[in-house]
Amino acid sequence: MKIVFGTPGTVSGLLLRCAQCLFAGASIGIMAAAVGFSNYTAFCYLIASMGLQLVWSMGISCFDIYTLWTRREIYSPILVSLFAVGDWVTSTLSSAAACSSAGVAVLFVKDTNYCRVNFQLPCGRYGLSIALAFVAWFLTSISSLIMFALLAST
Amino acid sequence: MKIVFGTPGTVSGLLLRCAQCLFAGASIGIMAAAVGFSNYTAFCYLIASMGLQLVWSMGISCFDIYTLWTRREIYSPILVSLFAVGDWVTSTLSSAAACSSAGVAVLFVKDTNYCRVNFQLPCGRYGLSIALAFVAWFLTSISSLIMFALLAST
Repeated sequence: MKIVFGTPGTVSGLLLRCAQCLFAGASIGIMAAAVGFSNYTAFCYLIASMGLQLVWSMGISCFDIYTLWTRREIYSPILVSLFAVGDWVTSTLSSAAACSSAGVAVLFVKDTNYCRVNFQLPCGRYGLSIALAFVAWFLTSISSLIMFALLAST
Repeated sequence: MKIVFGTPGTVSGLLLRCAQCLFAGASIGIMAAAVGFSNYTAFCYLIASMGLQLVWSMGISCFDIYTLWTRREIYSPILVSLFAVGDWVTSTLSSAAACSSAGVAVLFVKDTNYCRVNFQLPCGRYGLSIALAFVAWFLTSISSLIMFALLAST
């Protein structure tokens, strides 16, 4: 297997996964701290999707740490396929969650002026959480593309 | 270049592109016929994104018809790269548009009961248009995967 940036079992791969965990975790934390998020399905779905993203990226991080620690190459086409499918699924779900939440946020801020009328609604927090979710999705889509390239080259 | 299902310049490729045009066009038509869609950014974005999808798929359909008509192979790695990038961009934009519109539709139907209160709002049409956009996105993502597989094999 060719070693490129972001390959599992490398330092760059571990850093990419840690960044995914960081942004997904921050997105969950900020949304969970925003009052009234549970009234909106899109925001609940964002938390669920970012939770899945966090668990997946954390799992691959553990694999990276184990591989770096033992200095063993434990790759197989099956493992690469598993990683590629997992990354693709989490990337698609993260994208869907971030976009649907963004649709609702734009409705609140721009279309209905709901944020101006309802001062208690923490629209800034909603927006920040969605922005972090988009970054997490972007980082996962990079991993997904790397895994597909590795899969094609094996 | 290997000839697989959905490759540009084949009958299956032409049928796939025609189906994309059909679903994207139907999605635009139904949304444009729904009263009040222009008040919501997500629904306007859905029409814009499906319009781009329609133009792109129609362009590739013309290429397919020309290739089938002249029976010439006019592929090059640059052309395959162009198709792959174009499909990836339209697929991502369609996915974002369909998901953001779905977020708003769920808010109207489930979270706020806005559809029950406001009888004039054509929520059924919004839903149908979004469902058709999801089908158009699914068909484009198939094309996108085929193009990436072709790109990897060239």
